[in-house]
Amino acid sequence: MVTDVVATDVTVTEMVEMVRRPRVVRRADLHASVSDPAAASMNFLNEVAGRFPDAVSLAAGRPYDGFYTAHDIDRFLAVYRGHLAERGLSAAQIDRTLLQYGRTNGVIGDLIARMLATDEGIEVPSDAVMVTAGCQEAMIIALRGLCSGPDDVVLAVEPCYVGFTGAARILDIDVVPVPEAPDGLDPEAVVRVAAEVRASGRRPRALYVVPNFANPSGVSMPVPARKRLLEAAREADLLILEDDPYGLFGLDDEPRPTLKALDSDHSVIYLGSFAKSVFPGARVGFLVADQPVVDAAHHRTLLADELSTVKSMLTVNTSPIAQAVVGGMLIDSEFSLRTANRGKVEHYRTNLRTLLESLSREFGDDPRMRWNAPEGGFFAVLDVPFEADEELLEVSARDYGVLWTPMSYFYGSGGGECAIRLSCSVLEPSQVEEGVRRLGKLVRDRAS
Amino acid sequence: MVTDVVATDVTVTEMVEMVRRPRVVRRADLHASVSDPAAASMNFLNEVAGRFPDAVSLAAGRPYDGFYTAHDIDRFLAVYRGHLAERGLSAAQIDRTLLQYGRTNGVIGDLIARMLATDEGIEVPSDAVMVTAGCQEAMIIALRGLCSGPDDVVLAVEPCYVGFTGAARILDIDVVPVPEAPDGLDPEAVVRVAAEVRASGRRPRALYVVPNFANPSGVSMPVPARKRLLEAAREADLLILEDDPYGLFGLDDEPRPTLKALDSDHSVIYLGSFAKSVFPGARVGFLVADQPVVDAAHHRTLLADELSTVKSMLTVNTSPIAQAVVGGMLIDSEFSLRTANRGKVEHYRTNLRTLLESLSREFGDDPRMRWNAPEGGFFAVLDVPFEADEELLEVSARDYGVLWTPMSYFYGSGGGECAIRLSCSVLEPSQVEEGVRRLGKLVRDRAS
Repeated sequence: MVTDVVATDVTVTEMVEMVRRPRVVRRADLHASVSDPAAASMNFLNEVAGRFPDAVSLAAGRPYDGFYTAHDIDRFLAVYRGHLAERGLSAAQIDRTLLQYGRTNGVIGDLIARMLATDEGIEVPSDAVMVTAGCQEAMIIALRGLCSGPDDVVLAVEPCYVGFTGAARILDIDVVPVPEAPDGLDPEAVVRVAAEVRASGRRPRALYVVPNFANPSGVSMPVPARKRLLEAAREADLLILEDDPYGLFGLDDEPRPTLKALDSDHSVIYLGSFAKSVFPGARVGFLVADQPVVDAAHHRTLLADELSTVKSMLTVNTSPIAQAVVGGMLIDSEFSLRTANRGKVEHYRTNLRTLLESLSREFGDDPRMRWNAPEGGFFAVLDVPFEADEELLEVSARDYGVLWTPMSYFYGSGGGECAIRLSCSVLEPSQVEEGVRRLGKLVRDRAS
Repeated sequence: MVTDVVATDVTVTEMVEMVRRPRVVRRADLHASVSDPAAASMNFLNEVAGRFPDAVSLAAGRPYDGFYTAHDIDRFLAVYRGHLAERGLSAAQIDRTLLQYGRTNGVIGDLIARMLATDEGIEVPSDAVMVTAGCQEAMIIALRGLCSGPDDVVLAVEPCYVGFTGAARILDIDVVPVPEAPDGLDPEAVVRVAAEVRASGRRPRALYVVPNFANPSGVSMPVPARKRLLEAAREADLLILEDDPYGLFGLDDEPRPTLKALDSDHSVIYLGSFAKSVFPGARVGFLVADQPVVDAAHHRTLLADELSTVKSMLTVNTSPIAQAVVGGMLIDSEFSLRTANRGKVEHYRTNLRTLLESLSREFGDDPRMRWNAPEGGFFAVLDVPFEADEELLEVSARDYGVLWTPMSYFYGSGGGECAIRLSCSVLEPSQVEEGVRRLGKLVRDRAS
């Protein structure tokens, strides 16, 4: 870990020099998560984006900037303070709510539960909601609570959001992939993989899935598959970790029910994000864990209560200031993110339609080129007749002025080598068109 | 984990009933951190405090409430926005800084580095500072980065702050105690324990210590011991995790240098908190990791950069809104928390002096009673001639109207059975006096 000083036959000058020499940490001694390949890939992507700032980014998956200003923070804070005053809190109690340590599981669980009932038809008690420092922390907390030993593993759809595999890596939890089909996760594949895991002597504890407009693939599960997945989870003795950051942003006005809305027997832990529906800077997410937990004395609690110990050891509680910003927004929108996000929904619909139309225009005549047609969300996948690796990405950025994400980034051990993720969230429609035009030039040069 | 449904000889009604039966999670299947004894102890304490709201709490260690109002949030946000404008950012860039995802290691590292130079004489580059979701996350990140396998352990002063042992438990990292002496951690004990750990085939990676006014003991390390500890850390091939939440609150105006200020060879990772110097609700802390890291190709980075991957997998980044609140406060105070906290310092000094005087008045004639005399901070320890366990705590709350914390909560495997932690941060001086009077009655009844 650190250079050793062994004092044998050295001069005074050398000794002084050695004593002053800063201690050096060997990278190989640090935890494996530090060298996570997905993180290295994302760093490479950011680094390339930084070197070619004029390239159109079909890689960036962050939300569009133009919906709020920093002054909305003040407005939402004022709305939330007003709400506390209406509930009868004194000025000192309001100050304490915002400025002191607070309840580990957060103070806006009731507002989130109202939003879930209004928007998603999910009926859960407020106590089942834990507010987290973004959805990333919700993943860590659920993983940590559920996996107790080295034989406990989680299943995850593959290709998979790198935030989930990263969270598992932090905790040294193995992620076993379940391959995604063109129309989303196949419940029978889940049953099969879970059985293989059990046969190997390990215990599958949970399955991670994004049923709506997945990152990176863009695909969505049909409703019958959702219902079957809930049965399969029970058969395979798994809980489902349902992540739903893009569910608001469908191309039509008929959202499919979330797994949690269909979950009549507490099989689903729902992971929520406000990064796309409010703004990422709040860093507020949540989880819903309404599973009953029983101890040896048959005493019953809620899983959300048990997980609060994990939360307390990670971040104590989520900043009540950040919670107040999101809470104010929820109150301001009368607990409907679907209503509040109409403008965003239009933006993302226009962009996704533009992306799919541009792909048709650019590649419609080329039988070698295939892409999927997501029904919503931020992403689509284009298969290309060559390897889409980091070397090509650099060429694409430098010589063609367009950035994209290699799909191989989203596979744990091989896969996606000849596919790229196209993201359209952060651009204007004209930029999406221009990006696909540039991509067309790259593809024609490369595939000819 | 979950109740199984085995369909053998059951009626349709029974089957419907079974299918509808909610899945139950067995508590014994959850991770050990969920059942952490320290967390259970703290829950017990909170529960007793809730049942006896009129009891004077010499247990609560949170900061005093009266220094800020919720409107200071708006003010600090405005100061920070003004600061960004002065640095030449456009309105759109300011919005993006506060509302979008941002740099993993945070945006106020430069302001924190200026504060450390002004207040503590700690000179570090801004890039060595990582902003975290409270100091708790800083602990998790440092532990995760440094401990790579099951044989990597950390040393920690005992009695120990439960947040640190909890953080280690989340990551299944063993904590090896180093007993604290009446004048703080003994560097020779660190050398001895580290050697024992190595002899057992394990690798001690770091040592956790609170050199100033420790929680729970209140003790501080003398300056010569601090210098020797830095040498000892080098000899034992350990990094030091220095936690300093109470350093501002000494009884006199002559603060001792932090370990980090004395650290000429990058042996110290400094863990910082703004919970006491600004307010807990911001949930902003930081770590300073200026250690050089080398990889196999002799490429050099800073440890703070390597740890950013861990941070990205835990919480992505710290809410820039919360960072802006703290950043605004730092700018507003011209980067001196010591100056900005004069009012708080006076409050805490008065309370600690009141506590120590009250103890003298109440117990000065009783040769069986002993307590220490911390030179600052929030805590002191009283030894009592009987077991101070949870049963007695309940009696104390119910029949004597005073709460305190059993010192046994801060020991991993035995210790502190006949001692209590007295905390004076959150009370008015008259309440401190009254609390000690009530404690006197309990002690006389119990020890007679």
